[in-house]
Parts: sequence; structure tokens; C-alpha cells
Amino acid sequence: MNADVRNASLVDIEHGAYGVPGVVQVTMNRPDAFNALSEALLDALQTALADIAQSSAARVVVIAGAGRAFCAGHDLKEMRAAPSLAYYQALFARCTKLMMTIQRMPQPVIARVQGIATAAGCQLVAMCDLAVAAETARFAVSGVNLGLFCATPSVPLSRNLSRKAALEMLLTGDFIDAAEAKQQGLVNRVAPAEALDAEIARLATSICAKPVEAVSAGKGLFYRQLEMGIEAAYQLAGQTMACNMMDDSALEGVQAFIEKRPPDWKG
Amino acid sequence: MNADVRNASLVDIEHGAYGVPGVVQVTMNRPDAFNALSEALLDALQTALADIAQSSAARVVVIAGAGRAFCAGHDLKEMRAAPSLAYYQALFARCTKLMMTIQRMPQPVIARVQGIATAAGCQLVAMCDLAVAAETARFAVSGVNLGLFCATPSVPLSRNLSRKAALEMLLTGDFIDAAEAKQQGLVNRVAPAEALDAEIARLATSICAKPVEAVSAGKGLFYRQLEMGIEAAYQLAGQTMACNMMDDSALEGVQAFIEKRPPDWKG
Amino acid sequence: MNADVRNASLVDIEHGAYGVPGVVQVTMNRPDAFNALSEALLDALQTALADIAQSSAARVVVIAGAGRAFCAGHDLKEMRAAPSLAYYQALFARCTKLMMTIQRMPQPVIARVQGIATAAGCQLVAMCDLAVAAETARFAVSGVNLGLFCATPSVPLSRNLSRKAALEMLLTGDFIDAAEAKQQGLVNRVAPAEALDAEIARLATSICAKPVEAVSAGKGLFYRQLEMGIEAAYQLAGQTMACNMMDDSALEGVQAFIEKRPPDWKG
Repeated sequence: MNADVRNASLVDIEHGAYGVPGVVQVTMNRPDAFNALSEALLDALQTALADIAQSSAARVVVIAGAGRAFCAGHDLKEMRAAPSLAYYQALFARCTKLMMTIQRMPQPVIARVQGIATAAGCQLVAMCDLAVAAETARFAVSGVNLGLFCATPSVPLSRNLSRKAALEMLLTGDFIDAAEAKQQGLVNRVAPAEALDAEIARLATSICAKPVEAVSAGKGLFYRQLEMGIEAAYQLAGQTMACNMMDDSALEGVQAFIEKRPPDWKG
Repeated sequence: MNADVRNASLVDIEHGAYGVPGVVQVTMNRPDAFNALSEALLDALQTALADIAQSSAARVVVIAGAGRAFCAGHDLKEMRAAPSLAYYQALFARCTKLMMTIQRMPQPVIARVQGIATAAGCQLVAMCDLAVAAETARFAVSGVNLGLFCATPSVPLSRNLSRKAALEMLLTGDFIDAAEAKQQGLVNRVAPAEALDAEIARLATSICAKPVEAVSAGKGLFYRQLEMGIEAAYQLAGQTMACNMMDDSALEGVQAFIEKRPPDWKG
Repeated sequence: MNADVRNASLVDIEHGAYGVPGVVQVTMNRPDAFNALSEALLDALQTALADIAQSSAARVVVIAGAGRAFCAGHDLKEMRAAPSLAYYQALFARCTKLMMTIQRMPQPVIARVQGIATAAGCQLVAMCDLAVAAETARFAVSGVNLGLFCATPSVPLSRNLSRKAALEMLLTGDFIDAAEAKQQGLVNRVAPAEALDAEIARLATSICAKPVEAVSAGKGLFYRQLEMGIEAAYQLAGQTMACNMMDDSALEGVQAFIEKRPPDWKG
């Protein structure tokens, strides 16, 4: 595929990252552009994640950025070069598709935030299931500084942070640091820069040790039930859990617990 | 009733607990099984709470656990002994019914968490209106460690915690301590183990001092309006508050406030 | 207008407050009554905010309270003097209209909380887009102490705080201090009393520096998308952002960023 060749260098895909089989790291690779999400990079990420979503070998996905920045949002030069409403509608639809792919793929997706995450880059962090940040990472939805309110980033931001905190970031464009991001709910863990990979490895290893049926059904259920009233949410959750309990992995896991032995999930 | 006799020892019911008339403490009493929610215990809790819901003498309910654990979730031996989809569907429906009874009963329900609260035990804490934990309490939704994603616990957990924090607990099965539980929104207050009862007594006493009409109408409104858009929520809240203001207790309470005297709610 | 004259002293309106053109401060001016929201004050606020909503010169609104209190909620003497269900329904409907006006007006509204904010006064803080509190400010939804559950305040309170924290305030009527209010999400920033105005000036100045199109479209989008499922939210946000990008201010802002120069938004 021509597209694949063109995109080959835009994202690096590493299977067995962190020495953990099952962990796939997808690294945005436009370090000189602070990994700005050009159309080509959006396409490359979409292709990579859609492929991984189909892979039974992939158990956990890490999204990372090459160089000093995690991701600086959309590619503004590219955006400014094609000023039409139809173009912008299509661009944001494409970005939304990528974001929803992250939420809908069966594998948990962890953002590895080593540097700045701004605008759609901050949105990417918010959309990942989990996020681990270096102490030096910083976060902003800074479009408003240019006259462009970060409307699409506001969707996951307002579903991660309290509303006043989200609105302050959106209206001021100000940065928050990693500690504040953790306190607000935008990231799960903060580590010194030199310990970032070890922290991600710990988290990914923990999730890889769980049966795939529980993790994938659980992730899907989690987001679906969030959009329901509590009674409908419970109905769906009860169904999901009953089906999960009938999986061989759960039956063996529970049996092993009763017998006080490790589960045998390889057989 | 035969069922009552069978269940008599599974839950202890203490009226006037903490020396406060109106406080009913319901204590799960399977300490050797870490108060695991067997079918019989679920039934006993359901019966106890349904009875209390009808009692005008009961003003505040405290759910507690005997022994070292608060509640370790479902009874896994029992679950594993009857592996059928229909059985699990019925079991989770029964558990859901209990959880919704807590939310729908007119009295505020406080979880008294003195030890571990795992899986459906953690769900129970999340479903209570309020929760007070000993410093030594710990919380986990650990089913995923056995291959069984805590789907039904995820329903209240994701409505108490920020979504990344909830998902991290659900995907890793890791424990959080009481301080973290307070910071995340899972419990209201944390006290040294020896001061746990005093803290619960303070909270329960405060709520018992309020007129029952305000408390019961308010609790019901709180959960209903949470599931509405803000405009419908305001309409329902305005109606609720207008009706509440017409109660004798509110008219007297407001009048007493104006006259700078204590309200006379006994007359 | 007779009404305007009557209300003239109930709210003070200062254009260019804090020395910042575009900032309008609306000060509740019943200091001896702790700025209790009498019908006349509700009307005066409604008129003032509805006027400001139409003004293109107004960019940021600050709601403040004269004297020692921010706002002590409804005027209880007035309420108690007219005890009828129809009256209370109309009163809470009028209050709700004011609250929704704050959310729907195009300008960001900042609560300047220098003292106590109780019942509908706490609701006012919760409904403002942003809030800055003095260290000495305190917050309560204390109606329950009089037998009147703060039902309408519970609507924005439960959309700002975690549900157990909100319910604890509503059921106990207890005060929280400014630090707790910040930690819970009820206010954005806390400053020493003598630095409160400087903090508000900083925040207002930052927002006034942004193009009005981005700010007003962004605020509107923020609240609308919050009530939608994530997919519908993204569709609306994508449309909003595409339209915003076609504004001259955004095209110039992005171009200026590319050219590493300040945007020229006055031309």
C-alpha cells in the first residue's frame, strides 16, 4: 500500500514494548513539529490503531510521542492553507473518528505523556483510557489563544475534569502541570521523567496479566454504561458480568482463588 | 417467617445505634467469610433494608461489617458451584435490586468501612449515600484478577470517581487506601480506627436533627435530578422545594430562624 | 422604567471593573441582609444580566456581593410572609430563570466570593462559569437546618462536586471552607482576601484578551455538549469548531501563530 509506505515513518509501532509481550507502543514521529496531527499523521494513527484493534496478540496499547513534546494538536500550517468550512468539518470528523477508535478498541490505551500535550494533543490524553505523565509534562487547551476555542477537546476534557476546572483551561488557554493534571483527573500517575517508562511498564504488565475476555468486555461496558441512567446501566452490567463469568478464564480464575493456587490460563 | 429465622444471624440490626435514636445499624455478620455476599446474606440485607425503608422511626441507616473486613464481594464458592448463565443473571439482578434499594429508600445510608471493601463490597460503599472509613480501610474492584471484570461495581464506581481513576481500579484490581478513597470521592470522611464510631455518630446525629420531610424528599430528588438535563432537573427541584417549603417543619424552621430561636419540631 | 429605578440601588453595575475594559461587575447590594435574594434583588439581577447578555462591549461578567457576605440565599422573611405553594413555585422558577441566564449568556461569568455563600448563594457560585474565593469564604447549602432541603442548589452543586461530597453538604448543612471548595471543584482559585481582586483581574484580563467569537461560541458549546452522549457531543463540537475556524479572528490568530507574531485583532 502506498499510504502505508508514506506513513511508515510517521508512526513507529513496537510490539512487545517495555519487554512485555502484548504491549504495543504507537509512537507519533514528527518530533520537529511537536508531533502535530497533520492529516497524514491522523491517517497513520487511524490505520495503526484499527489494525491493533483487530489483533488478538495486542493486549495493551501505549500512545507516545517522539522528541520533546507529546503532541501539539492539529497541524496549524496545514489547516491555515486550506481555509474552507467543508475542509474543517472533514478534518474534525477525521480526528473524532480517531478519538472514538481509541475508546472503542478492545485494548486499554495508555497515554505516555513525556512533554507538552496541547489542544488536540491534550484531547488525546483525555481520550485514552489511562494516562501516565512525566513530572515535566504540561497540558493546555490553548486554541483560544489563537481565537479557536478547543471545542472537540472540550468533549473528553469535560468528561475527565470537574466542569469549572475544564472551563478555566478552555477559556484561559493556560497550562497546568502534571501534578495538577493528576489532581484534576486528567492523568492517573505522575513519575519522574527517568522513571516514566518503569511506571508505564508496571501498569501495562498488570493489565496484560488479566484474561483478555474480562478486559475487553469490561472496557466496552465501562463506556456504554456511563451514558445510561443507573438502572439501564445496571441491567447491561449484570448481563456483561454474567456472560464474563461463563468464560473459561473466569471459571478457572475463580476456581483457582477458591483452591488458593495461581490460575492456569495457558492450558 | 422461616426466611427471617434463617437470616437472623446473617445480619444484626441495632436500633438506636451510637446512642442516637433514629439510627439503625445493619451489620453484615459473616466475619469468617469476610462478609461475602452469599445469596442468603443478600436476601437478609434486602429484607432488612426493605423493612427499614418502611419505618418512620428509622432516620439514618449505617451499613457495617462484623470482624476484620467490611465486605469481600460475592461468595465465590457459591458462585462457582452453580455455573450457569441463568444463575449468574439472577444473582446479579438480585444484587442490583439490593443496591437500588439503598438508593431509593428514604433514609440516608452511611457505609461504615472498617476493613477491606472489595468487588461488590466496594460497590456497596459506592452505592451508599455517604461513607466513613477507618484509616486502615482499603478498597479494590479486584474481580479482574480472577478474570471477572467488576461490571456491576463499575456502575456506581464510575459515578463516584473520575473516569480514569475508576478505570484504573477496574483494570488493575489494585487496592487504594482510605486517604486515596477520600481524595477520589469514594468516601466522605476518614478517621483513625478508634475514632471511626465517633465520626459516624457525629454524621448520623447531624442528619437525625433535620426534619424527616426535608431529608427524604431531598435524597429522592438528588438522585432523580442527576439523571436529567439541567433544565428538567431544575423544574423537578423547584417543585420539590416548593412542596417541602409547605411542610409544617419547614414553615416552623424558617419562622424560628427569623425569630432567632431554635425550631420547635416536637409539638 | 419604574422597575429600573426601584432596583437601581439593589445591584451596582460597574463597567470596566478592575481597570479592564470589557469587564462588567454586578454587585449585589443588600449588605445588611447578607445580600439575600429578595424578589426585588432577583429581578434586579435578572434585568442586569439580560442587559449585559445583549452587550457586545461586555466580555466578562463578575458577580460580587457588597459587605461581609457574598449571598445568604433566598430572603426568608419575604418567603415566610407569603406561604402558598403557587408562590413558592413561582419564586423558585424565577430563581431558576436567573441561574439559567448565567449559563446561557455569551459572556463567561465569574463569582467573586469574599464571604459566606449559603443556600441559593452557594447555588449562584456553582452556576457561575468560574469562581474565585477569598481564603475566608465559606460555603454551605444550609436549608436542611431549617427543614428546607436545598433542592434547586443541589442541581448545580451535584454537577460541580462528586456526588458523596455534594450529598454530605446537602444533608448536614455544614460549611466547607475555601480550600475544601477548591479541592471539591466548587471554585477555581483561592486567594488571600487582600489579593482577591488581583486574582480576579488576572483571570478576567486573560479571558478578555481572547476573541469574542471563540469565547462565546465555546461557552455555549461547553454546556450543550455536556448533556449529550459522547458521539453527539463530538458532532456538535466539530461543527462549532469548523465554524469558529472560519471566523476572521481565528484565521488571523492561526496565521499570526505561524508567522510567530502577535495577532492583529483590532484592524
